[in-house]
Amino acid sequence: MKHNFGAGPGILPHEVLKQAAEGVLNFNGTGLSILEISHRSADFEAVLDEAVKLVKELLNVPEGYSVLFLQGGASTQFAMAPYNLLPEGGKAAYVESGVWAKKAIKEAAYFGGVEVVATSKESNFTYIPKKFDIPKDVAYIHITSNNTIYGTEMHEFFKSPVPVVCDMSSDIFSRPVNVADFGLIYAGAQKNMGPAGVTLVIVKNDILGKTGRNIPSMFNYQTQIEGGSMYNTPPCFAIYVSMLTLRWLKAKGGVAGIEQENIAKANALYAEIDRNPLFKGVCVPEDRSRMNVCFVMENPEHEKPFLKLCEEKGIVGVKGHRSVGGFRASIYNALPITSVHVLIDAMQEFQEKNK
Amino acid sequence: MKHNFGAGPGILPHEVLKQAAEGVLNFNGTGLSILEISHRSADFEAVLDEAVKLVKELLNVPEGYSVLFLQGGASTQFAMAPYNLLPEGGKAAYVESGVWAKKAIKEAAYFGGVEVVATSKESNFTYIPKKFDIPKDVAYIHITSNNTIYGTEMHEFFKSPVPVVCDMSSDIFSRPVNVADFGLIYAGAQKNMGPAGVTLVIVKNDILGKTGRNIPSMFNYQTQIEGGSMYNTPPCFAIYVSMLTLRWLKAKGGVAGIEQENIAKANALYAEIDRNPLFKGVCVPEDRSRMNVCFVMENPEHEKPFLKLCEEKGIVGVKGHRSVGGFRASIYNALPITSVHVLIDAMQEFQEKNK
Repeated sequence: MKHNFGAGPGILPHEVLKQAAEGVLNFNGTGLSILEISHRSADFEAVLDEAVKLVKELLNVPEGYSVLFLQGGASTQFAMAPYNLLPEGGKAAYVESGVWAKKAIKEAAYFGGVEVVATSKESNFTYIPKKFDIPKDVAYIHITSNNTIYGTEMHEFFKSPVPVVCDMSSDIFSRPVNVADFGLIYAGAQKNMGPAGVTLVIVKNDILGKTGRNIPSMFNYQTQIEGGSMYNTPPCFAIYVSMLTLRWLKAKGGVAGIEQENIAKANALYAEIDRNPLFKGVCVPEDRSRMNVCFVMENPEHEKPFLKLCEEKGIVGVKGHRSVGGFRASIYNALPITSVHVLIDAMQEFQEKNK
Repeated sequence: MKHNFGAGPGILPHEVLKQAAEGVLNFNGTGLSILEISHRSADFEAVLDEAVKLVKELLNVPEGYSVLFLQGGASTQFAMAPYNLLPEGGKAAYVESGVWAKKAIKEAAYFGGVEVVATSKESNFTYIPKKFDIPKDVAYIHITSNNTIYGTEMHEFFKSPVPVVCDMSSDIFSRPVNVADFGLIYAGAQKNMGPAGVTLVIVKNDILGKTGRNIPSMFNYQTQIEGGSMYNTPPCFAIYVSMLTLRWLKAKGGVAGIEQENIAKANALYAEIDRNPLFKGVCVPEDRSRMNVCFVMENPEHEKPFLKLCEEKGIVGVKGHRSVGGFRASIYNALPITSVHVLIDAMQEFQEKNK
């Protein structure tokens, strides 16, 4: 039995994996694999339709927004967002809350001016920058709702006079959000939605078409909207598994239901980090992420033996990112609380052994 | 038992599907799914390395070329190719051999001048345009080796003073090609290589970096080369299944081995089309594709009942593209010759019934 705390591609529900494996052999009783059927077949179109419907239902997406399943990950969105929203000679505001925000800033600079309105770089991103003004002359403001590497998360969003563009790759579907507060939300699937290879985009239709740019078809949200995510052959299997995962989430009580579980898991693990004198958290308590729990050891020499203990107990994927060190326990939607307890037990056992 | 003649996503080998389903449940005995492991894990890196190695080995890729696994399909390559190869103010030559070539032309026009040096549009693309001069002032010439909709295929390539860019989506790995004749080869996986969601790119390194353009990271072949196809999270599962399919192909005797099977399958089916007075081929015999066999019926009223007979025999995916009508039997690598015989038997049975 493995306890998968990997940061991404992350854990998926066991029943979803079972259904996905069945679909690879015999999809919907067609006698064909989901890997070898036409994306224009009624069976696959039903999958895509249900996936879109589930996104709208689970996130309560208002009228006037389009839901897309694209390829290329959030990294492609780092470029597509400014390509579609930033006029030639215009500028955009960015909040720099970690490495992924930095990458988004780098790509935006290919398309126009970038104003970094707030950063927590000076502390190696141990908190979410909160105090900033939104310049009146920017096309949009870009934020990152959860920073996997540092374990920080925005627990509140804000109203903005310009469209808010949000990279929600690592905490989408972990809690309710008010989609109406955003102009564009994007997320790589591989944390809470499905396997790597598909990217969710939720875009407010009326913010598009204002840049005067001629945008190649595949990079143009408008083309993708008109094609219903099938301007070209979509990543059928990744969409199928995402649909199955969203179905699972709905049966769990949706994002409000999973939020309660996520709070319980995060509270239990942070409580142990704060209680256990051998461990300490790496970011400010008020911005602690419910998805990625980052911690180090008071005595760095304890890290290797603790990692070994984790391995013995089937705990995998807890090594911290090289830029922070220590440990990172990713506790995405599909990770059961029993796995969190196994990790907490290991921390307590390690404390006993090292008294 | 289904006989899958679908045009794409197309048939995959049965043993590959079995291995893929196993990997979804328990990959390499790790106790984790291939869908939920880190792309930076040793287990996944071995998959990607083997996939690259198999491409190089099967196509005998010379030194100086890079092999990439990207996202976005050939449609994204329609834009990436000119983005990376066409200087501002420059122009490129295109051979217009079908709808996919037309789409490639449309995307190139976002980046510079396009000179269509040959077309078979006037005949609804029933042949491969062969007589054309390559202008000296173009950055590259773009061709489409196989045209799925019309069932035409280039059986010979040519030497060129400028780089040849080839969309090989629907016939790559079906026969040997001399990679050294090309500057850039790209192919969506979903015919002969794997499931939808990954795109193979083979690019000659020294044709890059000559446009003076600033290219966003994800759209830049150079970034993807430097990242070893992992600048960001790759489509792990689609790469895994592609690797399994390439392993299967190698065991079948590689592209030279499969070419013999493909010739046998195509010859058998075209022979029946030519023999059976109820059917006729749609394109000129010399350019007939070994991948997509397109045919119509002499009497259009026979089409519905023949399609019904096909359904009764488990023959699926044979309806022709709406722009050509009739039938299209895609006989990709993984389709066994026994399925071709089932189709031929159905054609003969239909002839008997309609004497």
